[in-house]
Amino acid sequence: MTDASRPERFAYLGPHGTFTEAALLSIPDAAGAEHIPYATVPAVLDALRRGDVDSAVVALENSVEGSVPTTLDELATGEPLQIVGEVHLPVAFALLVRPGTDLRDIKSVASHPIAQPQCRRWLATNVPDAEWHAATSNAEAAQHVADGHYDAALAGSFAAARYGLSVLAEDIHDVADAVTRFVALRRPCAPPPATGMDRTTVVAFLGEDHVGALLEILTEFSVRGINLTLIQSRPTGAGLGSYLFWMDFEGHVTDARVGEALMGLRRVCADVRYVGSYPRADEVRPEIRRGTHDDDFTEAAAWLASIRG
Amino acid sequence: MTDASRPERFAYLGPHGTFTEAALLSIPDAAGAEHIPYATVPAVLDALRRGDVDSAVVALENSVEGSVPTTLDELATGEPLQIVGEVHLPVAFALLVRPGTDLRDIKSVASHPIAQPQCRRWLATNVPDAEWHAATSNAEAAQHVADGHYDAALAGSFAAARYGLSVLAEDIHDVADAVTRFVALRRPCAPPPATGMDRTTVVAFLGEDHVGALLEILTEFSVRGINLTLIQSRPTGAGLGSYLFWMDFEGHVTDARVGEALMGLRRVCADVRYVGSYPRADEVRPEIRRGTHDDDFTEAAAWLASIRG
Repeated sequence: MTDASRPERFAYLGPHGTFTEAALLSIPDAAGAEHIPYATVPAVLDALRRGDVDSAVVALENSVEGSVPTTLDELATGEPLQIVGEVHLPVAFALLVRPGTDLRDIKSVASHPIAQPQCRRWLATNVPDAEWHAATSNAEAAQHVADGHYDAALAGSFAAARYGLSVLAEDIHDVADAVTRFVALRRPCAPPPATGMDRTTVVAFLGEDHVGALLEILTEFSVRGINLTLIQSRPTGAGLGSYLFWMDFEGHVTDARVGEALMGLRRVCADVRYVGSYPRADEVRPEIRRGTHDDDFTEAAAWLASIRG
Repeated sequence: MTDASRPERFAYLGPHGTFTEAALLSIPDAAGAEHIPYATVPAVLDALRRGDVDSAVVALENSVEGSVPTTLDELATGEPLQIVGEVHLPVAFALLVRPGTDLRDIKSVASHPIAQPQCRRWLATNVPDAEWHAATSNAEAAQHVADGHYDAALAGSFAAARYGLSVLAEDIHDVADAVTRFVALRRPCAPPPATGMDRTTVVAFLGEDHVGALLEILTEFSVRGINLTLIQSRPTGAGLGSYLFWMDFEGHVTDARVGEALMGLRRVCADVRYVGSYPRADEVRPEIRRGTHDDDFTEAAAWLASIRG
């Protein structure tokens, strides 16, 4: 679908100045690409599905923009897309003001509703008299400040330049080391090569609500020494007791231990959707347990062939 | 090693009239074969290893002749041999006497020491005044009775004719439904074809005494829906804390679920010895759990290939 004569197109959750745009800007492949904002996560993903863009970036986990459930549900049950990379951004807001504004002048602060609880303590300490106002995005809040409607906005510091604002305070967050995880998506394709520091995402559907189903699924991973990094259950919408499990885990689809675990999931689940294998943004190299290296699987397969003969 | 011009030779634990000979006589393949008694289990197995015989029959489990630990240790750590079949015999002794002897005449009873506790209640009820004497085998006890040394022997009823004795009482056993399991052995070979009612035996060696090793091994089976029918730990002789586990379980080495479990064992154990796959004597057909049929493995492998592509 990609036309070599034009730059790659990346869709992202806009408008300009969102954390998602900041995540997109941190992707080396996106340099020189065309960046196209969309108003909602489903709109971003549908643009990719239709082929209007080549790639898309959306928030997945611990978002500051409220898109986690939407993203999970879209990727779990919508027309399949594939994760090919991820970006971690620290959750850190800046207080953006019109140039010349002093902390004492601030009587109103605007932000996306998700940002407010993450900065509550900071606001109470530093601008105790300011009134908080909701905006549909942090970038929109910045626009409102630029337009003179409010005195300050909580947004990414990278949004300041776009809206002609100044950064009065940076690195605002009540929880230390909080991170938002974004994923880069493409239409279904071969995975990027294994790096030894990879993550794989699947969605497992439980067809019948049988006792021990989750234990059964977890055992498929643990018996092969694979650690899960995220497990999130969501209703499938197909009725009470019908669940899917979003699972991120260590390793690449081409790893022998991952392949065998995936086949195990495929055998015991009503359905399994493969969502992708991709390099971990945190570059954590998993400790591979005794007996679960690729070589161990190769040797064991040769031994089995010998005793079957 | 088999010479087509002569009948097959089967070694067994003698002398004539042992339960092992009775087990051998129940094997269809042994009809028309030459049956050669040996004095001990190691002697039986060494005859097979040397090629003096083509096959061997020894007691393995719940024996009435005391050979279980010897058999397990020999098959686990001696030069490899392979189980190709099994025979179950009910544990049931007969009281053998010289013709014309009455129950009231019996003042002495001889048997292998293993037989005595299994018949203790019966003896106390029916011949309360008889003194018990040890013999090196039940067949030898019968010989002693024929020679006039003792009044009665506890042995298999099939031994009576060989020693010119009469059966005064049959089906003597304190525990109902007790069974002795015998195995037919060959030198390493291809397994008999799968019947759908098969058992497989392996010996797993734990190289380091690490926590959770047994749980790890059991999980390799449980995650693939395979039930164990016997698990027996034995010291390896290589020092304190060094153990082997003899394991019998449902299924045939050519079953996909069994193959994957065996490869798992091979990966996590210091060593695994395959001892054989063979039809179950009890003809129990295992319930194959959802997701663990051969077809499920085939389908899952095709799916994995497709997502890796």
